[in-house]
Amino acid sequence: MNPAFLLVSRYEDAGAWRREMLALVPGMDFRVWPDDADPGDVTMIAIDYDDISKEILAAFPNVRCIVYLGHGAGDLLDHPAMPEGVDVVRLKDPGLIGAMVEYVILHVLRDLRMEPLYREQQRTRVWRQHQPRLAKDVHVGVMGLGSTGSAIARALVGLRFRVSGWAKSAHDLEGVTCLDGQDTLAGFLGDLDYCVSTLPLTRETRDLVDASTIAAMKRGAHFINVGRGATVVDEDLLAALGSGQLSGATLDVFRTEPLPRDHPFWSHPKVTVTPHESAARLDGSLPTIAENWQRLCQGRPLINLADPRKGY
Amino acid sequence: MNPAFLLVSRYEDAGAWRREMLALVPGMDFRVWPDDADPGDVTMIAIDYDDISKEILAAFPNVRCIVYLGHGAGDLLDHPAMPEGVDVVRLKDPGLIGAMVEYVILHVLRDLRMEPLYREQQRTRVWRQHQPRLAKDVHVGVMGLGSTGSAIARALVGLRFRVSGWAKSAHDLEGVTCLDGQDTLAGFLGDLDYCVSTLPLTRETRDLVDASTIAAMKRGAHFINVGRGATVVDEDLLAALGSGQLSGATLDVFRTEPLPRDHPFWSHPKVTVTPHESAARLDGSLPTIAENWQRLCQGRPLINLADPRKGY
Repeated sequence: MNPAFLLVSRYEDAGAWRREMLALVPGMDFRVWPDDADPGDVTMIAIDYDDISKEILAAFPNVRCIVYLGHGAGDLLDHPAMPEGVDVVRLKDPGLIGAMVEYVILHVLRDLRMEPLYREQQRTRVWRQHQPRLAKDVHVGVMGLGSTGSAIARALVGLRFRVSGWAKSAHDLEGVTCLDGQDTLAGFLGDLDYCVSTLPLTRETRDLVDASTIAAMKRGAHFINVGRGATVVDEDLLAALGSGQLSGATLDVFRTEPLPRDHPFWSHPKVTVTPHESAARLDGSLPTIAENWQRLCQGRPLINLADPRKGY
Repeated sequence: MNPAFLLVSRYEDAGAWRREMLALVPGMDFRVWPDDADPGDVTMIAIDYDDISKEILAAFPNVRCIVYLGHGAGDLLDHPAMPEGVDVVRLKDPGLIGAMVEYVILHVLRDLRMEPLYREQQRTRVWRQHQPRLAKDVHVGVMGLGSTGSAIARALVGLRFRVSGWAKSAHDLEGVTCLDGQDTLAGFLGDLDYCVSTLPLTRETRDLVDASTIAAMKRGAHFINVGRGATVVDEDLLAALGSGQLSGATLDVFRTEPLPRDHPFWSHPKVTVTPHESAARLDGSLPTIAENWQRLCQGRPLINLADPRKGY
């Protein structure tokens, strides 16, 4: 058997992965799903949450290690398709977090400081100042307080925003008003100027941001999604933008990616579309993956393993 | 004599000042320079550095207090037109600083994360990711380390940028490589990805950013000016953008404001123009000004006075 590495992801740039991995481990058998080679060769799979299914995992009987491309590994460890006795590698700071923090700060400030308006003024050579709200007077909420959500909340606090966080379970973050559980969601949403979702896609979060959730938000709030597209009901979001319930939306993730060319988000004047680029996944994480690949091939212990007892 | 308050500024929104000040002190005699009323009435002047001249100050013989609208008051205390024996009120955190920090963070991230490119991609419905550089790999320099420059440097450090600072005199800021004096300028500039100027306009800084200074910058750097327009030689900046020595410029201040409609900055594809809006001047400062106005009218001691012995 010739051990092979398999990338399973609808989001990653497979060509870039191949280049970078082969530079780190010349000659490795790097495969991208789906492919026709012998599935029995595959000993290591790198996979994102949205791509995990019983069918995919059952198709590769000799897998010994799964690299989780999401944040932390709690979602993967809980996943019903997760096979027993397989090591899970979690990527501690795969560049994801810093890049997503920077994305969120950029897009909150871009709206707060009326950048689209100033670009239009430049185009038409108009010199007109608009009094901005200051960060200290603006309330930003972060949905999901995993490693990414927490880092975003901390960075917002550092810039003097008023910051609240909401998650499934209780959290304690300095300077952040943390709420947890479904009962607190409407109260959390009702006072926010910006609502940033970092939620993963789970049974509980699918379609969570629907008409009733959006109705609980403060009128005129701006919604930013860096979590997963299927947590949002597109039609309900569009209706809220149309009615003025939401003043704008900045979306990096979508139910279908790439976003179909005929989707109304592309040309909506209140929607900012980015192509699932908030996280810079490759940065910093491939050396850990390559190291584990070599350890696995040599029968040595793996590093950066998730701990099923701790759940992450 | 009916004591009067005079606003002298080419930058401020006089209508907004009048509204806000009259709300705080109903019935006050609020004037905006130039006006035709008796100059002998004026006991308090609010003025920006660029507007100070011997002619203006000599025209109002009964001035007892000057409110400085710039950062700190060092520039004003040193000004050759500054009359003797007049109290100077400095605005401690007049909203200026937070607003300028937010402006600089926005515009560094906007360039770093290729926002103009993503806007164009949205317009043409193109789904294409570009690997971003991360803040931790990007070197930002701040010219001028007064209260604003220092706050900008600290906020950049908080977002994990590599940060250097340069000023006339020595500074010590945690996490910031601080340099001072003309001899260190070329070395400071030579390694920066972003150069942010917060420099005031003085004899030493006028035309400082000319062809030779720009030539000392790293090829492809981006220049951001939130200081004063006359510190930059426009023709030399345009030449550097044309040659590729600079990759872009974000300009909030200009030699002539409003920026003349025929100025090449307006339509230059590598220049972002904003209408001197980085600072939100009114926020938080008017209550201090109104308080001092009432104290002056009642003969009570003023608050927030600059200290000429300390120089700020």
